[in-house]
Amino acid sequence: MDQPQFTIWTNANLLDKGAEQLAASVTPHRLLYANEMSSLNLKACPPDLQLAQADIAFGQPDADQIIRSPKLKWIHLTTAGYTPYDRDDLREALQARNAFLTTSSGVYDEPCAQHLLAMMMAFARRLPESLETQRTDCSWPAVERRERSFLLNGQTALIFGYGEIAARLCELLAPFRMKLIGIRRRVRGDEAIQLIEESQLAEYLPQADHIINVLPANGSTLAYFDSSKFQRMKRGAYFYNIGRGATVDQNALEDTLRSGMLAGAYLDVMTPEPLPPSHALWRTPNCYITPHSAGGYDREMAGLVEHFIENLRRFGSGQPLLNRIT
Amino acid sequence: MDQPQFTIWTNANLLDKGAEQLAASVTPHRLLYANEMSSLNLKACPPDLQLAQADIAFGQPDADQIIRSPKLKWIHLTTAGYTPYDRDDLREALQARNAFLTTSSGVYDEPCAQHLLAMMMAFARRLPESLETQRTDCSWPAVERRERSFLLNGQTALIFGYGEIAARLCELLAPFRMKLIGIRRRVRGDEAIQLIEESQLAEYLPQADHIINVLPANGSTLAYFDSSKFQRMKRGAYFYNIGRGATVDQNALEDTLRSGMLAGAYLDVMTPEPLPPSHALWRTPNCYITPHSAGGYDREMAGLVEHFIENLRRFGSGQPLLNRIT
Repeated sequence: MDQPQFTIWTNANLLDKGAEQLAASVTPHRLLYANEMSSLNLKACPPDLQLAQADIAFGQPDADQIIRSPKLKWIHLTTAGYTPYDRDDLREALQARNAFLTTSSGVYDEPCAQHLLAMMMAFARRLPESLETQRTDCSWPAVERRERSFLLNGQTALIFGYGEIAARLCELLAPFRMKLIGIRRRVRGDEAIQLIEESQLAEYLPQADHIINVLPANGSTLAYFDSSKFQRMKRGAYFYNIGRGATVDQNALEDTLRSGMLAGAYLDVMTPEPLPPSHALWRTPNCYITPHSAGGYDREMAGLVEHFIENLRRFGSGQPLLNRIT
Repeated sequence: MDQPQFTIWTNANLLDKGAEQLAASVTPHRLLYANEMSSLNLKACPPDLQLAQADIAFGQPDADQIIRSPKLKWIHLTTAGYTPYDRDDLREALQARNAFLTTSSGVYDEPCAQHLLAMMMAFARRLPESLETQRTDCSWPAVERRERSFLLNGQTALIFGYGEIAARLCELLAPFRMKLIGIRRRVRGDEAIQLIEESQLAEYLPQADHIINVLPANGSTLAYFDSSKFQRMKRGAYFYNIGRGATVDQNALEDTLRSGMLAGAYLDVMTPEPLPPSHALWRTPNCYITPHSAGGYDREMAGLVEHFIENLRRFGSGQPLLNRIT
């Protein structure tokens, strides 16, 4: 059976290795590059023409240009988030032409879940404090460090934005027998843990030892974690954010940390990114920051290409696409 | 049924809270304190008399004094390790009087296993590097940090001193689907993972991404990890030690780290402890140190008392003791 030949536009930033792998994997389809790939000796085609010529887009195409490109039948984003594409006009345009929008979230579930576990374990075992001891006086505060360590067993984690990342985190946390509670926009009924409604937060927020934020950025999540939510958290709780920086009122978080109410925050996403070196959160006590690296891993680019190629195979044979949004 | 009343000698360092809990829990038995407990308004009895009067010892009694105290029928150590008691003359003396030696290892399995997981996750997610970025230039090296991160999935971990800590670590690592291989003095046959013989190390040492040392200190493990073992490890492997410092040739480890052959080491135990601030390992690249805090947690003292009280109940009713050595 002959596979159809597609024209695939891409502006995916896959670094050299990933770009080579993509070029080698898309046969028999045709690639149009939005940007010059000098390392691969490839020239970009003129920006206005290219997307309109393509059947498929892989990367981060401009949402307005997608609407103006009626030939485009499938857009595969290189990110897990899709905030710039979360628009009614885009949804309508895609639905009108039976086109799909998919994300690369399958690539990022595993590293993001492991990043969250790493953050939780670092707090539990006081690793940042021991690194600070090593950097400063090289003392041996065994008694104090041991007393401040804690076990995750039996503690409560409240996860905002329960989705694939959270589901995987719950698998990683299963051996700890924690109390895991989730909250999400639309409950599907197949979730592996207890889900609660927004209206139950008054009851559950003060119980959680770990508040885990995996919320996407959209109109309803902007500064979702504000001072009123921080004030209702349990004294000594830990806050984590690997969702999007815009979902947190950073001034309120800073105040809560400085007051000692929260025992710590581990943040991978900020507003803005990069967070300017002068920003107060860099120097807020018990606030630890990773540079939006939660989804990264050594095989990330290969993972993105393999995930796209699998969806391309499915697209070509009419099978359901992975990580479909519309 | 009347429980017998025992005389229990203790020099357990349980801090005030644990000492109070012990005093409240041992009824109807009698406690003899080796050290004055001024906080509890208790006086110590004369050192030479006390152990000889006791049926039970809880803490770290002197091994020679144990031999000279024929009334003593059970010694419960407050540690997981028992190096000072790993002596033929002591074993013979205890066996001659049908006496038991037990450890508190059950208290330490969980925190030690979680500490190891924390160390592994910290390397995988580059947490020490991000803390260093935060401490220095507050830059945002997202691309580099992501490329240097890695997933544990599918990697190989080789665990030296497979016992309860390792068994629990393997449960915590189960969701990662790693290749887990263990090595121990006496294979029992009920181990949950593949065990190999010392003679197979030449084959397995170069394959392991993570070399995990949980060895106890004894005659056969002194400087077990020497330059010949370090040289046979895989380039880019990670080394962990939460066993005992004496099992590692620290100069050889430093050389291996400085050569770049090992990607990192995370050490909780050292020779000597405290490790002097002038010691080179504090400043060896990619070497991270925690101050013998792997077994610690906020409820450690309560855990020690509860574990002893459970064994006391078993001792009184003739049931098998937990964590028995002889």
